[in-house]
Formats: sequence, structure tokens, C-alpha cells
Amino acid sequence: MANVGELTWRDEGVTENGVLERGFTVQGARDVITGIMWSPPTIPAGSPLVLIGHGGGAHKRAPTVLPTGQGFVLEHGITAVAIDAPGHGERGGVQGRTPEYYALWKDARVMTANATADWKLVLDALLGLGWFDPARVGWSGMSMGSLIGIPHVAAEPRFKVAALGLCGTRGDTPDRGNAGEVLAEAAKKITIPVIYLIQWDDERFPRESALALYDLIASPDKRLHAHPGAHGEMPLEGRMAGRWFVAQHLKA
Amino acid sequence: MANVGELTWRDEGVTENGVLERGFTVQGARDVITGIMWSPPTIPAGSPLVLIGHGGGAHKRAPTVLPTGQGFVLEHGITAVAIDAPGHGERGGVQGRTPEYYALWKDARVMTANATADWKLVLDALLGLGWFDPARVGWSGMSMGSLIGIPHVAAEPRFKVAALGLCGTRGDTPDRGNAGEVLAEAAKKITIPVIYLIQWDDERFPRESALALYDLIASPDKRLHAHPGAHGEMPLEGRMAGRWFVAQHLKA
Repeated sequence: MANVGELTWRDEGVTENGVLERGFTVQGARDVITGIMWSPPTIPAGSPLVLIGHGGGAHKRAPTVLPTGQGFVLEHGITAVAIDAPGHGERGGVQGRTPEYYALWKDARVMTANATADWKLVLDALLGLGWFDPARVGWSGMSMGSLIGIPHVAAEPRFKVAALGLCGTRGDTPDRGNAGEVLAEAAKKITIPVIYLIQWDDERFPRESALALYDLIASPDKRLHAHPGAHGEMPLEGRMAGRWFVAQHLKA
Repeated sequence: MANVGELTWRDEGVTENGVLERGFTVQGARDVITGIMWSPPTIPAGSPLVLIGHGGGAHKRAPTVLPTGQGFVLEHGITAVAIDAPGHGERGGVQGRTPEYYALWKDARVMTANATADWKLVLDALLGLGWFDPARVGWSGMSMGSLIGIPHVAAEPRFKVAALGLCGTRGDTPDRGNAGEVLAEAAKKITIPVIYLIQWDDERFPRESALALYDLIASPDKRLHAHPGAHGEMPLEGRMAGRWFVAQHLKA
């Protein structure tokens, strides 16, 4: 068994359309954290880095994550990394909003503390490679990528910018437990530049609760973009605006 | 006296930083409509055209209008036109939110019908020049530029795209009369692509009323961008997003 925090590459990687995709693991405190890195074929020293949080019941290479990872490389030449959230993907196999999913979220403090601890180990390991500029790290996560991302961004001083959204102080089910409370507390601690993307007709997070969460984010430099449609229908325009905003702040 | 609808150039124009600014008048049904055109030094035949509505108590060349007119030219090579609204600028001199201003808005149906009739004459006259593509005309107007703009866009089938915002179903004063009702009715008739820009802490139009008005816009292709700050504090980011969105739809 690897030491906690140790990064191991799983493969040489595959380059497709100019995006190099490599699998890696980082030994976590509870289990092995499984991740993917998307990057240009060569990563110049001192490059920026974006960490991506996937949605609930999804995984590090879900159809909602892959274009985000590839998009940061293709649109902005920026390396991006996603990991499986606790209990998700190769770390438990939760698929969709199953009873197992809601069990994970029974206590949002435990779930987000675990996820934040995982990400801290992963970021430490990634910065340890010597490839990235520790002053230019960003976060991008919608839906559960914000349920985890908001407490994570609040707790991680190395983030310079974040794309958040598809989220709210009130979740899509009473089983969500104390997530709203945890999110509200964390949002008040976020002060970095934020773009917050919502779907106007989100059936999972009521509009008022999504707006309330945006309102709580303490960043003086924040903006909200809303597009019509359901939770899963964010248009390319919104996704691209999120990537563009994060990239601009990391390029500076 | 000129015939109703007749356009007269007031000057040869001045070119500064690549923007040609010319004054013109169009004979209106009630009085002379005074306007400004900002354009590239030469306007290629079949060019797009943007009409700009100014804010309440302002005028066609107010500090909130000038960068919009110049911006369409400088950022997108697109010609833009502003006129003084009824009672404003050279047409009565209302300055700020004075009793005269609220008197104009006592019956929003009259005010918006007058403004829409003015703009119809102006657009007819501008298209009569043979310089512009009648299929590529857009609207940009915030605050009173939306109080007028929303009924105007609802009534004018030649618009292909609109930038609206800093507005709401409930105005900043009980004196506003029936504006909310007029706006709500009109918003339901708008079906073209819209970008709607609001200020999160708008002291003139309560946030909920601004969101309610956005919600009423019938366009399937709409987006809302919100930035922190008061009514008069829209950042350059928001203004540029508005121009970019309008320009993209007129360039296609």
C-alpha cells in the first residue's frame, strides 16, 4: 500500500485531439482516490491548474465532466483534474440518486469534510509534481460539484477563482439532511472571484434557494448567469462562460 | 417644417478613435426627434444596426449611453443610434428623476406608445438610407431603456435580438403608476433572443421584481447576468456581455 498522499500514474495516457488524458491514484486516508488529468501534450512549468468536481451519482469521467476537462485544455490550454467523489465511480459505484447516494449525504458535514480532505491530498500531490503554479489554482464544480465545492473552496486558501452553481440552500429532497446549512455557512466564507451558473427551471434546486445561495457568497467579485431549462440542460454558452471566467483569472 | 418621418443630418460628423459620430433629426408626429449615430467611418451596404434606449432623466449622449454607442463600433464594427426619449434631452430637458420625469410616466401606456411611435419613424428613416440590412436590427436599453424597450421590442417585428435590464415589474416609486403592468404584458410578447442584465443590489428596482420581469419574457433563448452593486454600478463586464451578445446575433 502507498503512503497517504502518494500519487501513482496508472497509465502513459492517451492523446486525442490535442488533449492528453492520464489516469492516476492518490492514496487517501480512507481509500484510494481515483483521478484523471487532462492536459496539453506538454505542460510548461508554472502552469495553472483547475480542479473539477463532478455531479451527484456521476464520476470523474461522466459525460458532464469530460467536456469540462477537455474544454479547459482545448479552449484555454489549461490542465484540469477530476477525481471520483467519496462513494462514487471507482470508489463505491454510486450511480444516480440512489438510496446509497442519499446515505452518503445523510450528514453533509461528514461528506464534505471527507471530500475536502481528499482534494487537499490530491492538490498537495499535484503541486508536488512541480508542474503547476500554486498561485494559479481554480475550482469548477456544478451541482454536487458545488455541494462539495462550496465547503471545499471555503476551506482551501490556494484557490484563486471558482465556477459554482446548479445548487442551492435547499436540495431536491428532504433526505438531503443538513446540506443547506453546511452550504450556507461555507458560502459566507468564500471571498475569491466566482461565477455562479444556474438553470432557471432547475427541478432539483428551487430557483429561490439557488438565488439565496448566490446571495450568501461573500465574494465582492461575483456574477450569476441564468439560462432557461432543467437541471441537466445547461447550454454550452453557460459552460463556456464558466471555463472562460476561471481561465481568465488563472492566466493573469 | 419637415414631413413626418423625414431624416435630416445636422452635421458632417466628427471622427474620433475610429468612431464617426453624427447628429440627425427625424420629424416626429408630436415634435422633432433628436438623435445621434455612431458608426465606422464608412458603413458597408447591408450593415447591421443597433438602436439604443437611454436611461430615465438622461439623454441620447449621456455618460451611460456614449460608451455603449462607441462600444458597438469599436468592439464589433456595428453602427448604433440613440435618440432623446419623449421629454428628455433636447425634447424637453427632463434631467434626473424630477417631478417632470414622473409626470411623463404617469401613464406608462402613453409614454411607451409615444416612444415606440418615435422609434418606428426613426427606424423607417434609417432603413430608408439603404445602408442597413433590415433583417439585422437589434435593441439595447437598460433601466428606462427597458421601460421603453420592452414594449418597443414587443411591438417591433424587425428586431432580431435585444439587450434589456436594470428594470423590473415594480419600479422605484409608487408614482411609477402602471409601468409594471405595461411591462409585464409586453414581456410576455417578446420571443427573440434576449440578454437581461441586472444589478444584484439595485436600489431602484427590487431584485424580486427584476427577476419576475425576466421570468415573464417569453423568449426560449434568454439569459440573465447579475452583478453585485447598485443600479448605476453595472461593471464593464456586464455592458460588454450585452454588446457582445447583440453583436453575435447581428453578425450571423
